[in-house]
Amino acid sequence: MTSVILQLICPDRPGLVSELSSWIFKNSGNIRHADHHTDEGARLFLSRLEWNLDGFQIPRDAIKAEIHDLANSLGGKAQLHFSDVFPKVAIFVSKQSHCLLDLLGRVSNNELRMKVPLIISNHNSLRESCNQFEVEYNYIPIDNESKLISEKIILDSLVKHNIDLVVLAKYMQILSPNFLKAFPNIINIHHSFLPAFKGAKPYHRAWKRGVKLIGATAHYVTDALDDGPIIDQAIAHISHRDEVDDLIRKGRDIERITLARALTFHLRRQVMVYEGRTAIFA
Amino acid sequence: MTSVILQLICPDRPGLVSELSSWIFKNSGNIRHADHHTDEGARLFLSRLEWNLDGFQIPRDAIKAEIHDLANSLGGKAQLHFSDVFPKVAIFVSKQSHCLLDLLGRVSNNELRMKVPLIISNHNSLRESCNQFEVEYNYIPIDNESKLISEKIILDSLVKHNIDLVVLAKYMQILSPNFLKAFPNIINIHHSFLPAFKGAKPYHRAWKRGVKLIGATAHYVTDALDDGPIIDQAIAHISHRDEVDDLIRKGRDIERITLARALTFHLRRQVMVYEGRTAIFA
Amino acid sequence: MTSVILQLICPDRPGLVSELSSWIFKNSGNIRHADHHTDEGARLFLSRLEWNLDGFQIPRDAIKAEIHDLANSLGGKAQLHFSDVFPKVAIFVSKQSHCLLDLLGRVSNNELRMKVPLIISNHNSLRESCNQFEVEYNYIPIDNESKLISEKIILDSLVKHNIDLVVLAKYMQILSPNFLKAFPNIINIHHSFLPAFKGAKPYHRAWKRGVKLIGATAHYVTDALDDGPIIDQAIAHISHRDEVDDLIRKGRDIERITLARALTFHLRRQVMVYEGRTAIFA
Amino acid sequence: MTSVILQLICPDRPGLVSELSSWIFKNSGNIRHADHHTDEGARLFLSRLEWNLDGFQIPRDAIKAEIHDLANSLGGKAQLHFSDVFPKVAIFVSKQSHCLLDLLGRVSNNELRMKVPLIISNHNSLRESCNQFEVEYNYIPIDNESKLISEKIILDSLVKHNIDLVVLAKYMQILSPNFLKAFPNIINIHHSFLPAFKGAKPYHRAWKRGVKLIGATAHYVTDALDDGPIIDQAIAHISHRDEVDDLIRKGRDIERITLARALTFHLRRQVMVYEGRTAIFA
Repeated sequence: MTSVILQLICPDRPGLVSELSSWIFKNSGNIRHADHHTDEGARLFLSRLEWNLDGFQIPRDAIKAEIHDLANSLGGKAQLHFSDVFPKVAIFVSKQSHCLLDLLGRVSNNELRMKVPLIISNHNSLRESCNQFEVEYNYIPIDNESKLISEKIILDSLVKHNIDLVVLAKYMQILSPNFLKAFPNIINIHHSFLPAFKGAKPYHRAWKRGVKLIGATAHYVTDALDDGPIIDQAIAHISHRDEVDDLIRKGRDIERITLARALTFHLRRQVMVYEGRTAIFA
Repeated sequence: MTSVILQLICPDRPGLVSELSSWIFKNSGNIRHADHHTDEGARLFLSRLEWNLDGFQIPRDAIKAEIHDLANSLGGKAQLHFSDVFPKVAIFVSKQSHCLLDLLGRVSNNELRMKVPLIISNHNSLRESCNQFEVEYNYIPIDNESKLISEKIILDSLVKHNIDLVVLAKYMQILSPNFLKAFPNIINIHHSFLPAFKGAKPYHRAWKRGVKLIGATAHYVTDALDDGPIIDQAIAHISHRDEVDDLIRKGRDIERITLARALTFHLRRQVMVYEGRTAIFA
Repeated sequence: MTSVILQLICPDRPGLVSELSSWIFKNSGNIRHADHHTDEGARLFLSRLEWNLDGFQIPRDAIKAEIHDLANSLGGKAQLHFSDVFPKVAIFVSKQSHCLLDLLGRVSNNELRMKVPLIISNHNSLRESCNQFEVEYNYIPIDNESKLISEKIILDSLVKHNIDLVVLAKYMQILSPNFLKAFPNIINIHHSFLPAFKGAKPYHRAWKRGVKLIGATAHYVTDALDDGPIIDQAIAHISHRDEVDDLIRKGRDIERITLARALTFHLRRQVMVYEGRTAIFA
Repeated sequence: MTSVILQLICPDRPGLVSELSSWIFKNSGNIRHADHHTDEGARLFLSRLEWNLDGFQIPRDAIKAEIHDLANSLGGKAQLHFSDVFPKVAIFVSKQSHCLLDLLGRVSNNELRMKVPLIISNHNSLRESCNQFEVEYNYIPIDNESKLISEKIILDSLVKHNIDLVVLAKYMQILSPNFLKAFPNIINIHHSFLPAFKGAKPYHRAWKRGVKLIGATAHYVTDALDDGPIIDQAIAHISHRDEVDDLIRKGRDIERITLARALTFHLRRQVMVYEGRTAIFA
């Protein structure tokens, strides 16, 4: 059953829960989930409301305009989603296959509410692994000189496929600020518990430091490297017996689970981003 | 700042979120938390609403009657709490001190919203450890013959101290059905991940079975042994090196953390019980 | 670099560590790992020794006989393995693909020291997913009447492929005692934290009980259903928001990780089974 | 039963396990635990051997000299411990009581193999809480001007009580390099998963960063702030609902468990420090 999902952020004041829920009720909407959070420091009110489209008095096409007016009247911003619209996701990958195959497997299992029409890689080595899935595999090499041109080709590819979201599934390249400006909707999996071990080779540095646990962090990408809003984090225990290769091996499991969890939250529209952080209504 | 907390369970139907939040808003209540859950199988709607008492138009003493009418009109049941009322809790304990001292320490730290005027034990050995806390320590031995009389003495003690809640903090006695009928509001910590290893000596049985993790379960007590609604569970990893004594030692840590977490949920009125299970709005 | 791995169980007595390590040293073996465990209740000594084959004075083919004599002289039993021998594993599967594809992916990644020449399924639905891997997919339907015949066909298939180990990767059939007698070397993944929820539909029963965590258990298969020696266990947290389908979805992640971890231990010859339990030297 | 514990680090070469275990066996020692680790990068061999003192042919007082010779002959360093010698530990604390009371409670429970004759605090507020334990509470205020003098007083106090180990149980002062030179044997609990959030106010910074998990790290103290060898780490999950105060509250539980676990390892002589890291033979 299709549901309508409203995400709204506005300045906090009394009566907001009542106003929003009454608006839905008077239009005959049956609320399935109503989640709210007040950030008292920031004086912001966050709301996520999900109700059945079936029986709702406002026609599907007209809801967006009404929501827009509602948000304006509250001095806030709203996003509207329908649960039967599966976003088109491009997965970026380098040589490591574990996150990519994990995501494609979950899509096949109907576990993730997304379509994956496009894979972008700076290597050609995972092409064959993707054969069984109906997906275009674009091999676009990238190096410091070619970066500008390569990113232009990638952006064209995203436009051509109407991509809504990019997932960096162990794509070992740093996207330029220009790229992020042109396409800002990106989720990355980083192989450390941020903010520890930002940047390259976190497992090597974790091993060197002698930590007893390693981590993985799924986050939205921003200009500042590995500093975007965190969606989910997980850790694995390690011991002195573990060499760097063992950290990498153990890390693969938390990387793909953390990325899949974060994507699940995102695709169910349970994530709200504000002030460089996230609220997860799950 | 004092808040009013309403917990309501009623048959599900459209408009409930709107109706409840509007009732609060029209009485000038400023909602701090609004959580809802619909159990679609049971067709039940659960709601927890928390708003500031300050500025609320209905006088404190009159809220209960209004809530009662509201709940009746919805065919449901409601509980009302004020965050500045700290329930009186009696802790029952046998010989092991770890959960008892943990709870008393947290009360001293203002971490748990409760008062502990009374400790009941079937042993005298922990009396001294409680000296620094202002609490009455009632040593009430209990055995199969004396059970009826002992339980009567205990019940009188609960009444005398106006006890609201009993916490079984490793009280290695089974309370009789009559006791539970007379005083049903009880939380227990059981030293296994229920439903595995109900009853006596769970660590011995866990060791014998060769499990790789042990658990602890905090639950409300019902007639059926270790079968009441579960509030919280946690586990610890063990290895073949661990003897039964190690399981007991490792278990102590998860027991006291699980019990403290469950009590925190309970005291913040975040737990709602229905159909033999709990919803935790935390 | 190839290593020799010796697993020995014998009655405990002083001097065993010295005797074993001296035997290796006098034959010019360079020990890489030496792990021991004494089960004081059972008065058993367990030892796992791993040393470099390179430079060892006893020829590869002659080691087994020497080990046999050594074990005999200690009144114990020994197993000998070489790290460059990858066992042939048959994966049994029904309709769910997540564990199967996870294992095949790990084999492709060189993460698991095994070969998978054979997949047995009572359904035909996963055949296509296995196409990219070089593996024979045997569709062998099974029902109560055909069980005897079907199991005979399966056993013939195991013999034909020289299978060393069977992995039940969500094979929703119970193997007969006769089958287990003919082929006893089997690892199963069960979707609960055993001993809770043995048997069918554990997630449904877990949901009904209102547990706050679900589990997965990898274990060797014995005659008694879900009662064999446990190799590894893991859990996931759930909340009142989770329906049975969510438990199943969350469970998939712990199932495949637990199975893969258990297999890793097994294939590295880090598991020793005794008295219905396991020691894991990892 | 008293056991002898030998910790030895020396350059790696073939035959070390054999040599050490044979030395114990020829002196009629019955080995209870034998753990080894080879750091291949550092070409170091680490060994921890534990055997029964009872029946051992070398007299208790003479073992140290023999061990010294043995270590010398291997070009390494050895430490010798007897399990019936409980080290004298001074606990340093500021205003927060949770780690202090947790440790004292565990000592009372005979869970930690140590004596605590001395508590040092730069505040007087926890004196009363320690009354029930037989321990001297030294209130030694410290500020930037008085630091040198205060540290001198503290050092005198450590000498007077024959202190073997200092535990910083939330002692919010940084000890001077001179102090560390005079008394280097110190364990600290830091309230973050190092290396993230070194230094002051880690929970505030964790909240600001929007992390989804917080951590605690027990480590040996070195000159470089929060950079010493890590013994144990743990994490707790947090959500957007958690304010800084909730992080602090949740953090208390992982702080005391992590500190207690690290101390348990240390006191059982299961920790070996080398190259800025630890091996934990547990």
